[in-house]
Amino acid sequence: MTGMTVDLTNYLRSRQALVNQSLEAFFTSPPPGLENHFAAMRYSLLGGGKRIRPILCLAAAEAIHPTVDSDTVLPFACALECIHTYSLIHDDLPAMDDDDLRRGRLTCHKKFGEAAAILAGDGLLTMAFEIMSAASTPPPAEIRLRIIGLIARAAGPMGMVGGQVMDLACEGRAVDLDTLRQVHEKKTGALLTASVQAGALAAGCDNDRFQAITVFGEQIGLAFQIIDDLLDVTATTEQLGKKAGADASRKKATYPALVGIKETRTRARQAVDDALHALDNFTEHADPLRELARFIEQRTY
Amino acid sequence: MTGMTVDLTNYLRSRQALVNQSLEAFFTSPPPGLENHFAAMRYSLLGGGKRIRPILCLAAAEAIHPTVDSDTVLPFACALECIHTYSLIHDDLPAMDDDDLRRGRLTCHKKFGEAAAILAGDGLLTMAFEIMSAASTPPPAEIRLRIIGLIARAAGPMGMVGGQVMDLACEGRAVDLDTLRQVHEKKTGALLTASVQAGALAAGCDNDRFQAITVFGEQIGLAFQIIDDLLDVTATTEQLGKKAGADASRKKATYPALVGIKETRTRARQAVDDALHALDNFTEHADPLRELARFIEQRTY
Repeated sequence: MTGMTVDLTNYLRSRQALVNQSLEAFFTSPPPGLENHFAAMRYSLLGGGKRIRPILCLAAAEAIHPTVDSDTVLPFACALECIHTYSLIHDDLPAMDDDDLRRGRLTCHKKFGEAAAILAGDGLLTMAFEIMSAASTPPPAEIRLRIIGLIARAAGPMGMVGGQVMDLACEGRAVDLDTLRQVHEKKTGALLTASVQAGALAAGCDNDRFQAITVFGEQIGLAFQIIDDLLDVTATTEQLGKKAGADASRKKATYPALVGIKETRTRARQAVDDALHALDNFTEHADPLRELARFIEQRTY
Repeated sequence: MTGMTVDLTNYLRSRQALVNQSLEAFFTSPPPGLENHFAAMRYSLLGGGKRIRPILCLAAAEAIHPTVDSDTVLPFACALECIHTYSLIHDDLPAMDDDDLRRGRLTCHKKFGEAAAILAGDGLLTMAFEIMSAASTPPPAEIRLRIIGLIARAAGPMGMVGGQVMDLACEGRAVDLDTLRQVHEKKTGALLTASVQAGALAAGCDNDRFQAITVFGEQIGLAFQIIDDLLDVTATTEQLGKKAGADASRKKATYPALVGIKETRTRARQAVDDALHALDNFTEHADPLRELARFIEQRTY
């Protein structure tokens, strides 16, 4: 493991700017009659957000190929953020988690109405695939197809959508740690793993490195959700930008509720250690990825 | 134009069976915890439906390459039906058109609840892209990517999703024929056009034939929606399998409301004639496609 060679704050800031600029370009100039639809998609997509998934995607590509052209990776990075944002919009709907606040602002349906929010989510999900399949830049078509396939799988019934289904089914029921872990893996872990896989494949990684990056992704996915559970207990609504204590009030199973706060922290640290261990054979070009893993463990919002 | 050389009833029946068998295979054996989610997707996907889009896709492929392997085309045909079905599920939601009946049965949210229906739609849309990108069969990756891109564009904000947005915005407002035509083009025309384009590309068509197939698709798309407007006035709820007279009760602009029933029929016929004309240079292998165009004009449900 190499030492701290990356200024993460600057790294995050520069990559966020890159991603935001690219997202902005994909969602500019609505055609006549669709101004409000584009406004709803842009409101949720461009209104803050840490850009964890796109930045993981970019950092994984750099870890594989340090001089990779960002234009090769950005379509996938942006598509991941579109998919993540659509999932937040739909999860917040009255029929689902019924949340009023997201990223410190009104949720999409509170701002634009329910029909507009459903359609903004549908639009963002579909745009993700349009963006990824627009084939004017590398990587080659075979690789691009493979990335689209793994992102679709991570986002769909076997991944994120399935995780949200299971999460809703768990509400108010006694759930053991094994089930909780499965829900987390699908709901959050799958797309985070796909984010680093997509970046690595776009940068031309071989099979060994793909396996290592996959383990890294799975472990930071686990850490991310454990910390999410923890922050719901320990952080304020203002810090989170969404309602704190929401899990407890919904009687949702969480790591803190099942194993206590101290053991929850231990497990998050273990997952991040395992993630870093998976990158043992990577050079210092994987340092941004390593710092991102530590950031995920230490984040307070 | 060649004469009636196709028994359309048999053709439809055999292609419906092929599509249903293939869809069935894509949505079999849910993983533990997702039984209800798969049941909701299967309920809407496999509970009837004319399979117009997948059959148009298969017929367009045959028109280009009469001995094309159906396994080359079926993933796209099935994906189109997944996308169509997701759009019906979301359009029927209480926040959108609020319909209780679809294909003669309860709508998905009436049967499974609203959250489950939103997620069934999301799952079907995402699965469509997973199915199309699974790359074990021809066509080559470049073609496959191009098809995915055009289907995504036809389904997203510039196509179907945008059309539904505009359709909702038109409710209860005075709308002229030009606006109505734009709404139709996006909401229904785009995916029907993409259906024949996808089949033609999968079968290896050249650029001239792609242009001809595109015109065919646009014109049958127009005819399809004109007839849909007409059936809302002239057919019964039992025939339609969904609520008849819904457009009028929602004060929606329709062809019959704007130009009268007789002129509506004339315009549907004109669109089908234009569609058939676009196929003038095609052989008898395009006869199923020609018969489908006539079927779209003459359908009574």
